[in-house]
Amino acid sequence: MTLINAISSLTMPLLATATASDSASIIAAVLISLVVIYLASIIGSEICDRLNMPPVLGQLLGGLVVGISALHLLVFTDSGGDSGDSVLIKFLVATTGLSIDGAATIFQINSEVISVLAELGVVILLFEIGLESDLKELLKVGPQSAIVATVGVAVPFAAGTFGLMYLFGVPAIPAIFAGAALTATSIGITAKVLSELQYLNRKEGQIIIGAAVLDDVLGIIILAVVASLAKTGKVEITNVLYLIVSAVAFLVGAILLGRLFNPYFVKIVDELKTRGQLLIPALIFAFVLSYIATAIKLEAILGAFTAGLVLAETQKCRALKNQVLPIADIFVPIFFVAVSAKTNIAVLNPFVPENREGLIIATFLIVVAILGKVVSGFTVFGQGETNRLAIGVGMIPRGEVGLVFAGIGSTSGVLSGSLSAAIIVMVILTTFLAPPLLSFVFQKPTIAEGERV
Amino acid sequence: MTLINAISSLTMPLLATATASDSASIIAAVLISLVVIYLASIIGSEICDRLNMPPVLGQLLGGLVVGISALHLLVFTDSGGDSGDSVLIKFLVATTGLSIDGAATIFQINSEVISVLAELGVVILLFEIGLESDLKELLKVGPQSAIVATVGVAVPFAAGTFGLMYLFGVPAIPAIFAGAALTATSIGITAKVLSELQYLNRKEGQIIIGAAVLDDVLGIIILAVVASLAKTGKVEITNVLYLIVSAVAFLVGAILLGRLFNPYFVKIVDELKTRGQLLIPALIFAFVLSYIATAIKLEAILGAFTAGLVLAETQKCRALKNQVLPIADIFVPIFFVAVSAKTNIAVLNPFVPENREGLIIATFLIVVAILGKVVSGFTVFGQGETNRLAIGVGMIPRGEVGLVFAGIGSTSGVLSGSLSAAIIVMVILTTFLAPPLLSFVFQKPTIAEGERV
Repeated sequence: MTLINAISSLTMPLLATATASDSASIIAAVLISLVVIYLASIIGSEICDRLNMPPVLGQLLGGLVVGISALHLLVFTDSGGDSGDSVLIKFLVATTGLSIDGAATIFQINSEVISVLAELGVVILLFEIGLESDLKELLKVGPQSAIVATVGVAVPFAAGTFGLMYLFGVPAIPAIFAGAALTATSIGITAKVLSELQYLNRKEGQIIIGAAVLDDVLGIIILAVVASLAKTGKVEITNVLYLIVSAVAFLVGAILLGRLFNPYFVKIVDELKTRGQLLIPALIFAFVLSYIATAIKLEAILGAFTAGLVLAETQKCRALKNQVLPIADIFVPIFFVAVSAKTNIAVLNPFVPENREGLIIATFLIVVAILGKVVSGFTVFGQGETNRLAIGVGMIPRGEVGLVFAGIGSTSGVLSGSLSAAIIVMVILTTFLAPPLLSFVFQKPTIAEGERV
Repeated sequence: MTLINAISSLTMPLLATATASDSASIIAAVLISLVVIYLASIIGSEICDRLNMPPVLGQLLGGLVVGISALHLLVFTDSGGDSGDSVLIKFLVATTGLSIDGAATIFQINSEVISVLAELGVVILLFEIGLESDLKELLKVGPQSAIVATVGVAVPFAAGTFGLMYLFGVPAIPAIFAGAALTATSIGITAKVLSELQYLNRKEGQIIIGAAVLDDVLGIIILAVVASLAKTGKVEITNVLYLIVSAVAFLVGAILLGRLFNPYFVKIVDELKTRGQLLIPALIFAFVLSYIATAIKLEAILGAFTAGLVLAETQKCRALKNQVLPIADIFVPIFFVAVSAKTNIAVLNPFVPENREGLIIATFLIVVAILGKVVSGFTVFGQGETNRLAIGVGMIPRGEVGLVFAGIGSTSGVLSGSLSAAIIVMVILTTFLAPPLLSFVFQKPTIAEGERV
């Protein structure tokens, strides 16, 4: 569509020029954003790999470097940036002759497009993780996962809320909100690290993933409850019940229906003859489940994970995994780099006096966040030789879900500036500490195959 | 991010709710749009394959069915739709509890995101085509391609312009504009059909692709010239020279520098150890070249094609092709379905009296468009037994480039309603006629291997 760029360079007074020239600049902005993301991701991954750290940590660090915290190459509207902050947009203005007025539009659309690509990235990541998971193993560890999830939600929530109220004199509603922000583990980061350490299909990995899925569901319910509390001062029981019932019905229903559906899936795929004959039907299935999960107020990633679990039981699983691999390779880094590019670590700077109150509260929240999840690992029962510490550590990273809590809390006015900064710091540190801690507690598998579950 | 959906369902009066709830609805809208695109693509492809037609025709027909012409599932802002026209958005409102106000925003963002994904689709398609092309063969057919391109641009341009002026009494400027809209072949559609017929690496295929690349460059120059004419009444020679020089310098420069760069590319890839170690550097290279092409007012797809050509000469080519395959499988259908979903074939309806003037002019333009390119094929010289008719036919489809001309012409007021409708009809028919005509003139290769160039 650069045809029109040529026109606009002739400064022709066309009505269409604005939108048409936009279209050329948009694709240019998206391409250069992806180049920045991929460079950050590959350089970060390779450095961490050479230091024996999980590559995903490198992607997060790469995101910090190119994001709002440092180079300002990758700036998003929802991290409070505008087009003047984005070095990439300045680069576009300098290299493509984009006007300053047009720059604001391009900045916003580019920000939206990259955010959607990042969301597709986490959907594809969870689909891949579902494909790599073993449903039978997950069901076997079901009761353990349920206990780990419940304790891992209840302990940080209670300790955080009461600690803020009684140690720091925070009023009840913001204290409950901050406590709730401590609850949900980020499946994405944990699963990526476990997969990199080749622990995803071991007993501990399965318990962690099961618990992370459950605690996402619990997190959604808690957010609904807390939001309801903040608004009316009382909990809307019907809504809480609706969320619990729909989450359980979705998971169990999808898995049971999936078993009926699987033979037809294989039959349809075998009938197809044109390109993408396996991948396209599989993605249709994953995206439909993700859509249904969103429509019933759950998360898209829950649908994608369930779709992966279901298709993992078909005989096409191996071929599908091979084809999903390169797709995940190009989509998943967008998610990890974008999440940390959106995070401003300037709130960590202890030399700015205004940050100090937040830092003290942050220290408290981080301790609660880590200990609360570590404790949950020790509730695993009757599993013989299990690395209970590793399970607890695996539950530590809060990632994007915690950031959502902080975002809502601060824009709604429920959370003070320092309290929401403290939550952001907690999210950053748990996210960044988890990968090295996990590598430490889970040494690379050296146990013989026979000892695996 | 559905956490916030849960909140918005509690109608909490948060400032953040609008954007946050949007974010859940946006991913839902994008997911369901992709489901519609993939269903249209796979059903269309499979039907055409069974009828011995190229699958890409099925993708275009599938796009017509789900687009603005029929089901209104996939409607875009730039095809003149609004959120009230989109059945998909109505479905979102019905299933996700999205508000009518929010729907307009979601419609617009979804339209932008899918359009960008479609543009990425054509970038990846051209990258894949570059990887599959043989530079030595392309250079061998270079002089032939240059003649085919020049004649294929000059004949329809001259015949279209003078025909409109002297047969239909159209004023000079709109006649020149419409004539210019007849010039540029759509590489995407032609290359896809050639690849499906396994003719991409044969002599005829290489001449067509070479000529299509050249005529895109010529098309850009013509658009700049015509736009300049329409504005000032005189041609800006400096700009025309700039476009010619930059296009030639880009192609030749990239290929020459690429040969120096290739050993380093292989060396870097061999050093990398983390996931995506081949794909990510290759995409970085392709996206950087696409960006440079856009920045110097050429087309992104030209950059992607050049990147593919360059990397095709490395020893990693085979592995890279395997990994790009599934990525093209999921991106390319978005482009073909979106292009035809945006096209309203209602302007073809002969029962509406207002369409008749346009239909007569359209018939003239279609004849000129087809004959002008067929003639160009017969200019190929000294190639022994060559299917010259097939080369001309391969140049017929105008696709998205022609639509850009029509769009600019009509919104700028240069083209009358019936003239721009006639151009759209010409684009649709050349696009739809080319695949079956090509299958007809190029029977599936039955010639022995030894007879290949």
